[in-house]
Amino acid sequence: MTRTKKSRSAKVGLPPGSLVQVGEKLTDTFNIFLVYYDEESLQEMEIRKIAGCSTFLRKTGVTWIHVQGMPEIPVLEELGLHFGLHPLTLEDILNTDQRPKTEDYGDYLFIVLKMFYNAGSSREGLQSEQISILFGSNFVLSFEEKETDTFEAIRERLRSVNGRLRKSAADYLAHALVDAVVDHYFLILEHMGERIEQLEEELVTTPSAGFLNALQGLKKEMILLRKSLWPLREMITSLERSESPLISKSSMLYFRDIYDHTIHIIDTLETYRDMLSGILDIYLSSISNRMNEIMKVLTVIATLFMPLTFIAGIYGMNFKYMPELEWRWGYAMVWVFLLATAAGMLLYFRKRNWW
Amino acid sequence: MTRTKKSRSAKVGLPPGSLVQVGEKLTDTFNIFLVYYDEESLQEMEIRKIAGCSTFLRKTGVTWIHVQGMPEIPVLEELGLHFGLHPLTLEDILNTDQRPKTEDYGDYLFIVLKMFYNAGSSREGLQSEQISILFGSNFVLSFEEKETDTFEAIRERLRSVNGRLRKSAADYLAHALVDAVVDHYFLILEHMGERIEQLEEELVTTPSAGFLNALQGLKKEMILLRKSLWPLREMITSLERSESPLISKSSMLYFRDIYDHTIHIIDTLETYRDMLSGILDIYLSSISNRMNEIMKVLTVIATLFMPLTFIAGIYGMNFKYMPELEWRWGYAMVWVFLLATAAGMLLYFRKRNWW
Amino acid sequence: MTRTKKSRSAKVGLPPGSLVQVGEKLTDTFNIFLVYYDEESLQEMEIRKIAGCSTFLRKTGVTWIHVQGMPEIPVLEELGLHFGLHPLTLEDILNTDQRPKTEDYGDYLFIVLKMFYNAGSSREGLQSEQISILFGSNFVLSFEEKETDTFEAIRERLRSVNGRLRKSAADYLAHALVDAVVDHYFLILEHMGERIEQLEEELVTTPSAGFLNALQGLKKEMILLRKSLWPLREMITSLERSESPLISKSSMLYFRDIYDHTIHIIDTLETYRDMLSGILDIYLSSISNRMNEIMKVLTVIATLFMPLTFIAGIYGMNFKYMPELEWRWGYAMVWVFLLATAAGMLLYFRKRNWW
Amino acid sequence: MTRTKKSRSAKVGLPPGSLVQVGEKLTDTFNIFLVYYDEESLQEMEIRKIAGCSTFLRKTGVTWIHVQGMPEIPVLEELGLHFGLHPLTLEDILNTDQRPKTEDYGDYLFIVLKMFYNAGSSREGLQSEQISILFGSNFVLSFEEKETDTFEAIRERLRSVNGRLRKSAADYLAHALVDAVVDHYFLILEHMGERIEQLEEELVTTPSAGFLNALQGLKKEMILLRKSLWPLREMITSLERSESPLISKSSMLYFRDIYDHTIHIIDTLETYRDMLSGILDIYLSSISNRMNEIMKVLTVIATLFMPLTFIAGIYGMNFKYMPELEWRWGYAMVWVFLLATAAGMLLYFRKRNWW
Amino acid sequence: MTRTKKSRSAKVGLPPGSLVQVGEKLTDTFNIFLVYYDEESLQEMEIRKIAGCSTFLRKTGVTWIHVQGMPEIPVLEELGLHFGLHPLTLEDILNTDQRPKTEDYGDYLFIVLKMFYNAGSSREGLQSEQISILFGSNFVLSFEEKETDTFEAIRERLRSVNGRLRKSAADYLAHALVDAVVDHYFLILEHMGERIEQLEEELVTTPSAGFLNALQGLKKEMILLRKSLWPLREMITSLERSESPLISKSSMLYFRDIYDHTIHIIDTLETYRDMLSGILDIYLSSISNRMNEIMKVLTVIATLFMPLTFIAGIYGMNFKYMPELEWRWGYAMVWVFLLATAAGMLLYFRKRNWW
Repeated sequence: MTRTKKSRSAKVGLPPGSLVQVGEKLTDTFNIFLVYYDEESLQEMEIRKIAGCSTFLRKTGVTWIHVQGMPEIPVLEELGLHFGLHPLTLEDILNTDQRPKTEDYGDYLFIVLKMFYNAGSSREGLQSEQISILFGSNFVLSFEEKETDTFEAIRERLRSVNGRLRKSAADYLAHALVDAVVDHYFLILEHMGERIEQLEEELVTTPSAGFLNALQGLKKEMILLRKSLWPLREMITSLERSESPLISKSSMLYFRDIYDHTIHIIDTLETYRDMLSGILDIYLSSISNRMNEIMKVLTVIATLFMPLTFIAGIYGMNFKYMPELEWRWGYAMVWVFLLATAAGMLLYFRKRNWW
Repeated sequence: MTRTKKSRSAKVGLPPGSLVQVGEKLTDTFNIFLVYYDEESLQEMEIRKIAGCSTFLRKTGVTWIHVQGMPEIPVLEELGLHFGLHPLTLEDILNTDQRPKTEDYGDYLFIVLKMFYNAGSSREGLQSEQISILFGSNFVLSFEEKETDTFEAIRERLRSVNGRLRKSAADYLAHALVDAVVDHYFLILEHMGERIEQLEEELVTTPSAGFLNALQGLKKEMILLRKSLWPLREMITSLERSESPLISKSSMLYFRDIYDHTIHIIDTLETYRDMLSGILDIYLSSISNRMNEIMKVLTVIATLFMPLTFIAGIYGMNFKYMPELEWRWGYAMVWVFLLATAAGMLLYFRKRNWW
Repeated sequence: MTRTKKSRSAKVGLPPGSLVQVGEKLTDTFNIFLVYYDEESLQEMEIRKIAGCSTFLRKTGVTWIHVQGMPEIPVLEELGLHFGLHPLTLEDILNTDQRPKTEDYGDYLFIVLKMFYNAGSSREGLQSEQISILFGSNFVLSFEEKETDTFEAIRERLRSVNGRLRKSAADYLAHALVDAVVDHYFLILEHMGERIEQLEEELVTTPSAGFLNALQGLKKEMILLRKSLWPLREMITSLERSESPLISKSSMLYFRDIYDHTIHIIDTLETYRDMLSGILDIYLSSISNRMNEIMKVLTVIATLFMPLTFIAGIYGMNFKYMPELEWRWGYAMVWVFLLATAAGMLLYFRKRNWW
Repeated sequence: MTRTKKSRSAKVGLPPGSLVQVGEKLTDTFNIFLVYYDEESLQEMEIRKIAGCSTFLRKTGVTWIHVQGMPEIPVLEELGLHFGLHPLTLEDILNTDQRPKTEDYGDYLFIVLKMFYNAGSSREGLQSEQISILFGSNFVLSFEEKETDTFEAIRERLRSVNGRLRKSAADYLAHALVDAVVDHYFLILEHMGERIEQLEEELVTTPSAGFLNALQGLKKEMILLRKSLWPLREMITSLERSESPLISKSSMLYFRDIYDHTIHIIDTLETYRDMLSGILDIYLSSISNRMNEIMKVLTVIATLFMPLTFIAGIYGMNFKYMPELEWRWGYAMVWVFLLATAAGMLLYFRKRNWW
Repeated sequence: MTRTKKSRSAKVGLPPGSLVQVGEKLTDTFNIFLVYYDEESLQEMEIRKIAGCSTFLRKTGVTWIHVQGMPEIPVLEELGLHFGLHPLTLEDILNTDQRPKTEDYGDYLFIVLKMFYNAGSSREGLQSEQISILFGSNFVLSFEEKETDTFEAIRERLRSVNGRLRKSAADYLAHALVDAVVDHYFLILEHMGERIEQLEEELVTTPSAGFLNALQGLKKEMILLRKSLWPLREMITSLERSESPLISKSSMLYFRDIYDHTIHIIDTLETYRDMLSGILDIYLSSISNRMNEIMKVLTVIATLFMPLTFIAGIYGMNFKYMPELEWRWGYAMVWVFLLATAAGMLLYFRKRNWW
C-alpha cells in the first residue's frame, strides 16, 4: 500500500468543484457495496458499475451504497450523475482534509465526519479517517477512506427482520451510521483517561524521563480530537436547525441523542484538558521543590565544611612563630573548636527547618 | 457488594435504545417504593410488581414510584410499558454515565441529575450517583443508583397533611426532588471552602509535603463538580424554555428558585477556583523566594571563606624562601588581614541587603 | 453582640419558603422605621407593630418601611401578610447569603443587593452586608443587615420639600436606595486603587516580606467584589427588560444611569485585575533576576579562588623532590602566576558582562 | 494652573443630577466659542453669555458651541436651559471620569469620548481628557476638558465654502468631531508600536535593567487604552441601533466608517498585547537560560578543581610514614595524575554538551 | 523601486474621503488590465484611460478591470466617476492598512482582503498585500498592491470557452477572485506546519540557541495571520447576511464554500497556536529539568570532596603533638576512612536517586 499525501496547495488556482484528491491517500483500491432493504426483503451485493443501482432507486425501500477506499474519479462522477450531486459535494468527498460539517442541498443532506482510532503501536498515536454520508428520501451514500469494518455492525442489524432499522426510512439509517462513528469517540476517550491516570500515578512516585513527552503527546492528541469535536457539535445543531423535510420528527429525536453524546464527549475532553494542565502545574512545582531540596543539601554541606577547612588551613601554615602549634593541648583544642562550630551550624539549620 | 464498572465502549455498535447497563454498578439489589397521595389520603408501600400500580394511576392524586438501586432490565421494560416511556429514556436511566439534562417527551418530562456526596474517608474524595426523575400529569418516577435516603425528608413532608406538597400536583413533587438534590451541593461547597481555608492557613505558615497533592485533589474535585454544574444550569433553563404544560406557572416560580441556587453554586465554585489558582501562584512565588534565601546563605558563606582559605593555603606552601614566614609578627599580621577581609565582605553583603 | 453564622446546609431538606435565617447573623436587635411622604407632608416614626402602618398604605403618598438588623420571624411574617409577599421573598430576605438579583412578583419588584464597606482595621479587609429592597405602587420596604446609616442621606433629602424625591413615586425612592448602595462601590474601588499604587511603588524599590500576602489579599477582595458585581449588572438589565408597570419611563432613565455606573465599576475592577496580574509577573521576573545576580557573584568568587587555592595546595605538598620549592624566586613566581590567573579570569567575566 | 482631583466619592449620597465636578480638574479657566454656518455664510465668535446664542438657533443653519475647559456650574445650567438638556446630561459633562457612551434623549444625542495624547516627557506617559458632544437637529455642543486645539482643523474645514461640512447638517459636524478624536488613537498606536519594536530589539541584544519597567509601563498604557476602546466600539454600535432621526442615512455611512476605524484600532491593540506577552515569555525563558549557563560554569569549575585540591591536600598531610612522599618521581606522578583527572572531566563535560 | 511607508497619522485631521495614500507604498508604477467576456467572446487589453471602457459597460457581458500597483489619484477619481463609487470606497482602496471587510453600497459590493505570501528569504518572514474587489451587476474591479500574478490562473480559466466562469455573471468572477486569495492561505499554513514540526523535532534532541527566536517569530506570524483571518470570516458572514441582489443564490453556495475554507484555516491556526504554546511549556520544563541535573552534579561533587578535603586539611596541620601522625598505619587508616566516607555518600545519593 503506497501512501501519498497530496496537500491542499495542489489545488490552489483550480476552480471550485475540481475533482482532485486532497489529503493522505490511505489506500489505492476501493470497493462498492450495495444494500437494498425494505420491511420484507434485503439484498446485499458488491457492485462495480453504478449504473446497475438505478433499478433499486425506483423501488420504495432504501438503497444504501457504501464506498470503501477512495473511489476513482470517473466512478465518483457517475455517482454524481445518478444521484444528482452538486460538484462541490463531489469535491468535498475527495478532499479528506475536511472539517466535520452538514450541508443541505435540498434534495439531499451531506454530512462529513471524522472517525478516530488508535493505531496499533502507541508511537503512531491517534489516527483518523474521513467518513462522508449523504442521504436523500430513499437512498444513503457513505464513503469511508479505509478498508475497515466500521459499519459491519449496522449491516448485521439490517439483516434481522425485526430491527427498527428495517422498518425505518433512509434518515434513520443515516443516523445509525453517524451514531456508529460518534460511539467510537468513547473508546478514544477511555484510552486517554487511562493514560491520564497513569501520568497521575507516575507524578506521585517518580516521573520518568519520558514523562514530559507522554504529557505533550497526550495534549497533542487532545488538540486534534478537539478540532474535530467542536464542528461535530455545530454540525448536529445545524442538522436540527435546517428543518429539512428529509429528517422525520421521530428520527430527529435520535439525532438529538447523538447531540447529547457529542456534548458529553466534549465535556469529558475539557475535563481531561483541565486535568492535564493541573498535572503539568504539579510537575513544574515538584521540579522547583526538588531543586530546593538539592540546594539545601549543597548549602548545608558547604556551610558546614568551608569554615572547618579554613581553620584546618590556618594551622597548616608554616609561620615560624605560631604559639598555638607548640601548646600541649593545641591539637585537642582545635578538634573541640571544630566540633563545636559544626554542632552550632547544625543547630542553626535545624532551626531554619533545613534538616 | 460487588462493584463492576461497565464502560460506555461496551455499547459501541449496538442500536440506540438498547438496554445495557453502563457505568459503575454500585449495588446489585433494588427496591421499589410507591407513594400515592392526594389532599385527603396518603398510601406508602414497597412493591415488587409494576402491574399493581395501575390502579393508582387511574385516581386523581399523584403516584410517586421511587426505585432505589439499579433495577433489573425486565422490571424497567415493564415500567416503560405502563408509563409509555420512550426507549431512549429507558436507555438513559440505565446509563449512569450521563450528563445532567432535561428532555421533553410530550407526555412526560425527563430529568437527569448528579447527586454528590463526600465519601466517609477523605482519601476517596467526592463521590456521585445519578438520579433520574420523570414526571407526567399525575405521576412521578424517580431512580436512585444507591441505597441512600436522599428523599426521606420529602416522604416526611408528604406525611404531614398541611404541607404544600400534599396540596400540589406532580410537578411540585418533581421540583421538591430536584431541590433536594441541588441543596446537597451546598454541603459539598462548604466542605470545599473549609479545605481551601486550611490550605491558605498552611501557606502562611509552612506548607507540608502533601500541600501540592491536597491542592491538586481539590482542583480535581472542582473540575468534576463543574462538569455537572454547567449542564445543570442549562437543564433548568431549558425546563423554563420548554413551556411544557406539565409545569404550572406557580411551580415554575419554584423551579426558578432552584435556578438561582444553581447560579449561586456556580459563582461560588468559580470564586473557589480563582482562590485556588491564587494560592498556587503564591506557593510558587514562595518556593522561588525560599530558593533565593538558600542561595544567599550559600553565596555569603562561599564568598567569605574561599578567599580566607586561599590565604591560609598560601602560607601553607613549603617554599624555601618565603620571607613572611620568618617575620616575628607574620602570623598575627595574617590574622589581622583575614579578619579585615571578612569584615569588608560582611559590610558589602549588608549593603546589598543580603544579610 | 454575638455573631453566629448559620450555614446554608442547615436548610437542606426543608421545603422552599421555610423561614430559617441563613448566613452570619450580624446583630440580634432590629429596628423598624416608617417614613410616609407626599408632596405636602412628611411623617417619620419608629414603629414596633406592622399593623399600624396600614393606615398609611391607604393614602396616596409613599410609605417607606426600613428594617435595620435581622427582624424576628413573626414580624417578617406579619410584613408578608400586610404587603402580600410571596413566601420565597420572605425566605430570601432572611437568607443573607444571596447573590444580587431582581425578581418581578407582579405586585411588587424584589431587589437583593450587596453593600460593601472597609472594616476599620485593614486586617479584616472587605466586609459586606445584604440589602433587600421591595417596592410596589405606593410602598417601599428595605432591609439592612446591620445598624449602619446607609440611607440617612436619603432621609435627609426627603425632608427638603423641594427635592425631586418628594415629588416622585415609590419607584424613584427605590432607585435612590439602589443608587446609594452602588455609589458606595466607588469608595471601595478608590481604596483598592490606592493599595495597588502602593504595591507598584514597593515593586520598584524593594518588595517587603509581606508583599505577596498584600497582593493575595487584594486579589481575594477583588474576587469577592466581582462575584457581586456581575449579578448586579444582570440585575439592572433584567429590571429594564422586565418592563414592569411599577417603573415609570422617567425613572427607568435613572435606573439606566445606575447601570452605567455599574459598568464603569466593573471596567475599573477588570483594569485593576490586569494591573495586579502585571505586578505579579514583574515580581516573579525580578525574583528570577535577583537569583541570577546572586548566582553570578557565587560563580565569580568560586571560579576565581578555586584554581588559586588548588595551586597553593600543590606547593603545600610534602614531596621530598619538588624542584620548584628550592628555587630562589619560586615563591615570587607563584604569586605572579596567581595574579595573572586571577586577572585573566576577571577579564573573561567582564567580557561576559558578569561584572 | 492648579490641578485638583475630586474623586467620585465626593458625590456619594448626593441625588443624581447634582452638578458637582468630579475627576481631575485640569484647568480653571474656560472659553466658549460659537460658530454659526449655513451654505452661504459663516460666523465665528467667542461669547461670554449663553443667552446671546438663541438668535442663531432660530435660523436654519447649524450652531456649534464649543466649550474649552471646565465651565462654571451656572454657565452649564444656563446651557441646559437653552438647549433643553436633561440634568443627568449636565452631570455627565461635569464628571470627567466617565466611560465612553452614547445616550439618546430624543431631542438630542449625547456622546462621551476619551481623547488620548502622549505627554511631552515619556515619564508621564499616556494622558487623556474627556470630550462630550451633544447634537440636535440644528445645533452641536462640544465640551473639551483642556485648552488644546483638537478641533482647529475642523474649524479650518468649515471656513472653506465648498467643503462637505458646510453643506451638511449638524449630524455630519458631530461625525467630524468624533472622527477627529478617533483618528488621534492612530497616533497613540504608532507610538506604542515603535516602543514594542524597541523592546524586541533590546530582547535580542541585552535587555537593560529598565526592560521590565518599560514593558510593564507599556502594558499599563494598553490596559488604559483598552478600557476606553471597548465602550467606544459599543458606543458606535448603539448609535447605529438607536435609529435616531437625528442621524441621516448618508451620515450613518460615515459613522460606520468610524466604527471600522475603531475595530481596526482594537485589533491592533490586541495584536500588540499578544506581542507583549510573547516578549515577556521570551524574556523569562532567556533569564532561565542564562541561569543555566552560569550554573554550568560554576559546576564545571567546582567539579574540576575540587578533586584536584583534594589530591593536593592528601600530599600536604604530615604523616610520618607516607611512602609516596619519598619516591623519586612522586611529585611528577601526582602532576600526571592531576592532569589526567582534569582531562577526563573535561571530556565528560564535552560529552554532556556543557562546554 | 522605492518604498515609502505613509503612516495613518498623516491623515489625522483630514475629512473622510480624502484621497491620500496610506500604508507602505510597494511600487510606483501601475497597470490597468481590462477583460470583457460573455459566453461567446473574450477581449483582453491593457488600457491607459478609463474613459475607453464605457463602451464595454453598455454590453451584456462582464467587464473586469484589474489594477496592478497603486493607481495615481486622478485615475482613481476617474474610475470613481465612471462606476459611481462612493468617496469612502476610493479612500479605502488607497489605504492599504485596512482590515478585511465587506461593504454593501447598494449598486456595488466592496470587498477588502489581505493576500499573504512568504518572502524569498526566511529572515523577512510573512509579507502581505491588500487586494480590493468591487463588483456590480455587470462589472468587477480589482486592485492589487503589487505586480504579482495572483489572478493569472483565473484569466487562464476565462480563456477556455466551456468554463463555468464564462457562463456566469460578475458575482461568480468576484467569488473566483476571493477564492484565489483564500486558497493562498493554505500555502502559508503548510509552511507554518513544517516549521512547527521542525521545532518539535529540535525539542526532542537539543534545542539550538535560535530556538526561542524561531518560536517567537512563528508566534508573531500567527498573530499577524490571525488578525486577518477573523475579519475575513466576519466578512463572508456579512456577505451572506447582506442578501444583496448582486449575488445570485447559486453563487452564494460558492461563497459558503469559501466560508468553510476560512473556518478550516482558522481552526488549523488555532491548533498550531495550541501546539506552539505546548512546545514552549515543554521547553521551559526541560530547562528546569536540565538545571536540576546540573545542580545535582554540583551538589554530589561538593558533598563528596568537601569532607574529604577537610580531613586531608586536618592532617596537614603543623601541631607539635598530633599522635596520629606518628602512628605506623596512620596514613593507611586515613585512606580507609576517606574511602569509607566517599562510599557512604555515594550510597546515600544512590538512595535519593541522584545518580
